[in-house]
Amino acid sequence: MTLPAPIRWRDGRLWLLDQRRLPDEVFYEEQLNARDVARAIRDLHVRGAPAIGVAAAYAMAMAWRNGDDLVQTAGELRLARPTAVNLEWAVDRLLHAASRGADLMEEARAVHDEDRAMCEAIGRHGAELIKPGSNLLTHCNAGALAVSHLGTATAPMYVAHEAGVRFHVYVDETRPVLQGSRLTSWELARAGIDHTLICDSVAAHLMAEDAVDLVIVGADRVTANGDTVNKIGTRALAIVAQYHGVPFYVACPSSTVDSTTATGADVAIEERPVAEVTEGIPAVLGVKVRNPAFDVTPAELVTAYVTEHGVVKNIGDG
Amino acid sequence: MTLPAPIRWRDGRLWLLDQRRLPDEVFYEEQLNARDVARAIRDLHVRGAPAIGVAAAYAMAMAWRNGDDLVQTAGELRLARPTAVNLEWAVDRLLHAASRGADLMEEARAVHDEDRAMCEAIGRHGAELIKPGSNLLTHCNAGALAVSHLGTATAPMYVAHEAGVRFHVYVDETRPVLQGSRLTSWELARAGIDHTLICDSVAAHLMAEDAVDLVIVGADRVTANGDTVNKIGTRALAIVAQYHGVPFYVACPSSTVDSTTATGADVAIEERPVAEVTEGIPAVLGVKVRNPAFDVTPAELVTAYVTEHGVVKNIGDG
Repeated sequence: MTLPAPIRWRDGRLWLLDQRRLPDEVFYEEQLNARDVARAIRDLHVRGAPAIGVAAAYAMAMAWRNGDDLVQTAGELRLARPTAVNLEWAVDRLLHAASRGADLMEEARAVHDEDRAMCEAIGRHGAELIKPGSNLLTHCNAGALAVSHLGTATAPMYVAHEAGVRFHVYVDETRPVLQGSRLTSWELARAGIDHTLICDSVAAHLMAEDAVDLVIVGADRVTANGDTVNKIGTRALAIVAQYHGVPFYVACPSSTVDSTTATGADVAIEERPVAEVTEGIPAVLGVKVRNPAFDVTPAELVTAYVTEHGVVKNIGDG
Repeated sequence: MTLPAPIRWRDGRLWLLDQRRLPDEVFYEEQLNARDVARAIRDLHVRGAPAIGVAAAYAMAMAWRNGDDLVQTAGELRLARPTAVNLEWAVDRLLHAASRGADLMEEARAVHDEDRAMCEAIGRHGAELIKPGSNLLTHCNAGALAVSHLGTATAPMYVAHEAGVRFHVYVDETRPVLQGSRLTSWELARAGIDHTLICDSVAAHLMAEDAVDLVIVGADRVTANGDTVNKIGTRALAIVAQYHGVPFYVACPSSTVDSTTATGADVAIEERPVAEVTEGIPAVLGVKVRNPAFDVTPAELVTAYVTEHGVVKNIGDG
């Protein structure tokens, strides 16, 4: 099974896979400093909450090595993607390490290693949800490309596949940036996992046909009450799953829980550029567009969370 | 207010607006015979249940004028789009007219005129649902382009707009064929109606923000119990609207009711070509795709139907 690595760290040099070029081109771009990394995060060359955290940790380590102002660097990195809680978490962890005089190169590598171990644990627990012949459905890319090893939503799939379980995955294309068709489908194809691409609006029809046994998605942030902030379209998918009695799982490391935020209503949702929606499609020149990048799935719609600790009904304080 | 005409009939010659070329190009193509029309229907040059019915009526009239076998022509036309009940209805009506020796040119023109009157009546009744400052949401194109005059889902918008009511419409882009961004947005822009384009998965987020007051969609077929067959994504939208307590209206002429079909479960859903999904987007070569063109919205999710007879809770036998 071949898994892609979104982040490579070798001999003190950082390379990020430019995910905007997938699936046509596999291109790693060297990042020379934290500003490069902030730009790569903002422009979605690297994406997915855990991968953003790992990239930001290396960015802080490079800033430390270069003798840059760490507080200023941390501020720049935090602004690159306001919704990803792992970004804040990683930046804060490196700042604290610096304040106690630690080696930030080692600390960043530890963040990366822990991320790998976390993926494996999520995969192990989540694989129990996948039976021979199961039909899964996933949205966006919470895959190896979004993390650093097995992914989060995909980790159970990879572990089950390695164990010889045969199942099938419906992959939402995930408009507007098409992380499903570009990334998840590409990852699953490389791993040899049977899957079918669908437009985002098809899930309800498949569920009406009893063609979906479970939904697994990732999360960019989970608030203290269990509300889940994830890629736009996740909320609709969870509502539709509940209507059809299809279990809906959120796979994420416990570091995704932001216990300082009470509920999803307290999370500011990033509005991204109009061009993400209108470029490449026939649209009226100058048309107004709303392009929220994320939405909030109420905790009541989540059957269970798959974390490194197990498949749990409640997460955070919930 | 400028409305586009999908079908032009002048001096016994038929011209269809090639809707695949919108919004970039407004191109009318002459249809020389019923076979041309069947191809135009199949290839989505003309689309929308009522417009398909009118085009098929003219196709039958041309076949009658040319002395073609009407039963064979009727069969070819019926096969062009299996889901549109108006297609069958129009073809049968012209066959019956022929069997009683009527002039099919006059009969086709009557179908067209009745379609216009029907749009106006739907518009008049539905306009009462639109208040100053209302935020509407619509899916696909049940607009002037889909019918022959004011459209069905759009008819209330055009009537309210002409009456000076100011409101706003969210337009689902409607993957994969993008009838929302290509057609509905183009129509509304020409009419001067304030609107915002969104990806199909955004509606639930907007409803969570209380940004949507009502949903109006069209229908390709309504079964005897009120189940509504419409563009893929309508079912999810109706489920999401119910979750948020947003009223969900289906605007359609009473001729859309297929009283010979008991429920939506009895309707075969057309699967369209893979290329509609994968062309123009980054996708893995040879990826499997499901591309159902329609889905079924259960009658229980429909707040009311807007027909030429009024805003009614039940339609058909329901």
